[in-house]
Amino acid sequence: MKRKREHRPIDPDYLAEGIIRGDRSILAQSITLVESNAERHFDAAQSLLDKVLSKRTSSIRIGITGVPGAGKSTFIDTFGTYLCKKGHKVAVLAVDPTSHVSKGSILGDKTRMERLSVNPDAFIRPSPSSGTLGGVGRKTRETMLLCEAAGFDIILIETMGVGQGEYLVRGMVDFFLLLVLTGAGDELQTMKKGIMELPDLVVVNKADGGNLPLSKKAVQEYSTMLHFLKPYTEGWTTEALPASALKETGIQEVWEKIEAFQKTTRESGLFEKRRRGQQKDWLHESIKDELLYAFYKNPSVLERLSAAEQNIAEEKAAVSALVKELVEEFLKSKS
Amino acid sequence: MKRKREHRPIDPDYLAEGIIRGDRSILAQSITLVESNAERHFDAAQSLLDKVLSKRTSSIRIGITGVPGAGKSTFIDTFGTYLCKKGHKVAVLAVDPTSHVSKGSILGDKTRMERLSVNPDAFIRPSPSSGTLGGVGRKTRETMLLCEAAGFDIILIETMGVGQGEYLVRGMVDFFLLLVLTGAGDELQTMKKGIMELPDLVVVNKADGGNLPLSKKAVQEYSTMLHFLKPYTEGWTTEALPASALKETGIQEVWEKIEAFQKTTRESGLFEKRRRGQQKDWLHESIKDELLYAFYKNPSVLERLSAAEQNIAEEKAAVSALVKELVEEFLKSKS
Repeated sequence: MKRKREHRPIDPDYLAEGIIRGDRSILAQSITLVESNAERHFDAAQSLLDKVLSKRTSSIRIGITGVPGAGKSTFIDTFGTYLCKKGHKVAVLAVDPTSHVSKGSILGDKTRMERLSVNPDAFIRPSPSSGTLGGVGRKTRETMLLCEAAGFDIILIETMGVGQGEYLVRGMVDFFLLLVLTGAGDELQTMKKGIMELPDLVVVNKADGGNLPLSKKAVQEYSTMLHFLKPYTEGWTTEALPASALKETGIQEVWEKIEAFQKTTRESGLFEKRRRGQQKDWLHESIKDELLYAFYKNPSVLERLSAAEQNIAEEKAAVSALVKELVEEFLKSKS
Repeated sequence: MKRKREHRPIDPDYLAEGIIRGDRSILAQSITLVESNAERHFDAAQSLLDKVLSKRTSSIRIGITGVPGAGKSTFIDTFGTYLCKKGHKVAVLAVDPTSHVSKGSILGDKTRMERLSVNPDAFIRPSPSSGTLGGVGRKTRETMLLCEAAGFDIILIETMGVGQGEYLVRGMVDFFLLLVLTGAGDELQTMKKGIMELPDLVVVNKADGGNLPLSKKAVQEYSTMLHFLKPYTEGWTTEALPASALKETGIQEVWEKIEAFQKTTRESGLFEKRRRGQQKDWLHESIKDELLYAFYKNPSVLERLSAAEQNIAEEKAAVSALVKELVEEFLKSKS
């Protein structure tokens, strides 16, 4: 028998209580709520966030990116499992700004992280769809807050492939890790310029077996290059380390580096300062999105916009004057 | 005797008439008017633009960029002088999005282009300061329109150095030329990734004297690379040509290429289509700027903003809800 699908009223109190209790099913439901592009979900989602904001556990947010083939999933599987063994609770979020299909890669992500996906101390969530209402950035930031409220103290944010994703993620994490392979020279050719200036640590993965001499060389090459670049984080030296996710070597050293980073930046106040700055950036980005959203759905604007576009395209009217008119009309019509 | 400086009323009719007559001093004054960041100049500038828009000569807008040391100024001096000899009227505008000082480089630009600066058929204008009110992009676009109204049928837009400038200029020209030197391999290392995907023509400059064999090799290397890249303009093949601005060789071939480009793209309709698209992009960019400008100078917004920033920085409030409140307050207060 097919049940009629209905919109049950959402109860933020119930969800908040479930999250704080650590109920994973309610956490998952709540993430779906904040990821929703439906306007009718907005108020409930924001009310839920307000309720859990003060209940969050102190966390470290780690961004992980890498060239294709560097073995990101295996690394996260091994690294996450190692962290759980040490008593941490690890949430893995993926960010793919090009993703337009919601939940498209859940299965993909979970099968790619075999051990972590069945670990009771880990929680894996694929990239939200970009959609509207602030896009992937807003959704991932809010998901991060929910995971922290559910007691996850290590948040790993994986970026997919190359491009804008790296900058987006760098702007929402405390620590950024770049995963590379042996053969720095060739690899750097395929990397987007500027990416090498983002990480707090470069990990040369697959440093095992017959690959060892090559990876040793790669560590040296990356170290040389990093020496010439200004580290992203003031007062911290970005280094290159070898590791093997497969053989589980070098993993402890990576974590020790991250712990040292936390200690240094928390003591210097930079950790807190960066988080505050990230929050402000998020505020102003959101303001821009919200203003544009309100503008482009305004009926009086829409009424005039296509005529304006036509006049402008034919260079029949001065753009700046027309824009001023449109914006004035928009502001008047919202009274 | 020192005269008292006063704000004379600006007469757009007088300026428009002068521009259309080809009065260079009035053209220069008018550009200063559209470049002004003073709000009291806005209406006069826009009224002036409206008056001259339909009087513009048909033009080709050519962006010119190059690696530092590629000899941009000498190339523009030689190329522009060549075009004037052929009966064209050439306006040279510079774009430097980082420029904050108005008129800072007039003297610089003019001395760098010795012959062109004294040519009665040429007009050289330095980069406007970025300031507010739409920044360098708006100012350069509007200056371009004024130059076209004054009868200049070739607009050369020079970008300074590397960075955002290239994308800004690519978005306002019909044809984009990249000036390079011999030694493609080394040079490409210093170029911003992605720049090679923008030009419609690559010119290997300083192909003269003992440099000839090297430049021949560079032309080949660039050709090979361009072969693997998707040309920016559909239906057009981006090629590499040698030239010497100093010895005045290869200049005619560059112009023939641009003429062929014009013919192809005007016939296919792409020329017109691109200009229409650029106008629309400009419209929407300006809408964004204008909305943000109105928001951040709104007194009720400013009153609440710093408290909001504080709450957000301390993660005490949900960003999205706060943004919605701020934007709603802004829209209400403008009734």
